[in-house]
Amino acid sequence: MSPMSDGRTRVNELTREEALHLLQHQSYVGRIGFMFQGQLLVLPVNYLAEADAIFFCTTEGTKLSAVRDGIEVAFEVDSSRPLYHSGWSVLVNGTATEVTDADELDRLRRGPLKSWAVPSSQHWVRISIDSIAGRQIPES
Amino acid sequence: MSPMSDGRTRVNELTREEALHLLQHQSYVGRIGFMFQGQLLVLPVNYLAEADAIFFCTTEGTKLSAVRDGIEVAFEVDSSRPLYHSGWSVLVNGTATEVTDADELDRLRRGPLKSWAVPSSQHWVRISIDSIAGRQIPES
Repeated sequence: MSPMSDGRTRVNELTREEALHLLQHQSYVGRIGFMFQGQLLVLPVNYLAEADAIFFCTTEGTKLSAVRDGIEVAFEVDSSRPLYHSGWSVLVNGTATEVTDADELDRLRRGPLKSWAVPSSQHWVRISIDSIAGRQIPES
Repeated sequence: MSPMSDGRTRVNELTREEALHLLQHQSYVGRIGFMFQGQLLVLPVNYLAEADAIFFCTTEGTKLSAVRDGIEVAFEVDSSRPLYHSGWSVLVNGTATEVTDADELDRLRRGPLKSWAVPSSQHWVRISIDSIAGRQIPES
């Protein structure tokens, strides 16, 4: 069998450090996945990642309603190079909660992250990075 | 208040036709979201979308184990232009099942879609498009 048809997967597992680096530095849009009223939702958000948490801002709506009381969510980022059939992805699982602490809100509002949808949005959501894993398909 | 700070969302809902068009023609990598052993997973796959279903190929593993008996999944595609703070996303909800019909497998194998991770993958998954919705943030 040729190297391209031996049936072995080309997927490499990333270390936690590699996955966190990609999450923090190599993407600006991720997708939050959560259950809402019996439906599984996956919605894109622009985000900011620190060492132990991901932050995004949003307006009153589905995402905020769902997370106000703290729910388990998934958060995914990826990048792909179709010409090379290569790419990487990172998956975080954690708990989403609305940020209500005044000092933390002030810190976030002075930062670089703004909502694309609602420029004056004042609601921030924090997702704890309880687990993180990443995978990579190298260039063939 | 200025137009940029009136607090109104800039998000437009897309029609079903617009969302289906974006799913079929404007993306090649989407993310499948599903519950697996109590954990919410969101994983990227390259895909092919027809009028009533999405197809992707995969190897033995988490995705295939999860869908073999038919499970409810979410499927998301998006695109963003960070310079303009604009973008769109489409969310499908449906049931994922492994394709086992010989004629359909033959048709899929003759098509353009190949697994990036496992070139010789013979497992195909079909996600029915039970519902589809899309949103757009126009350029500001």
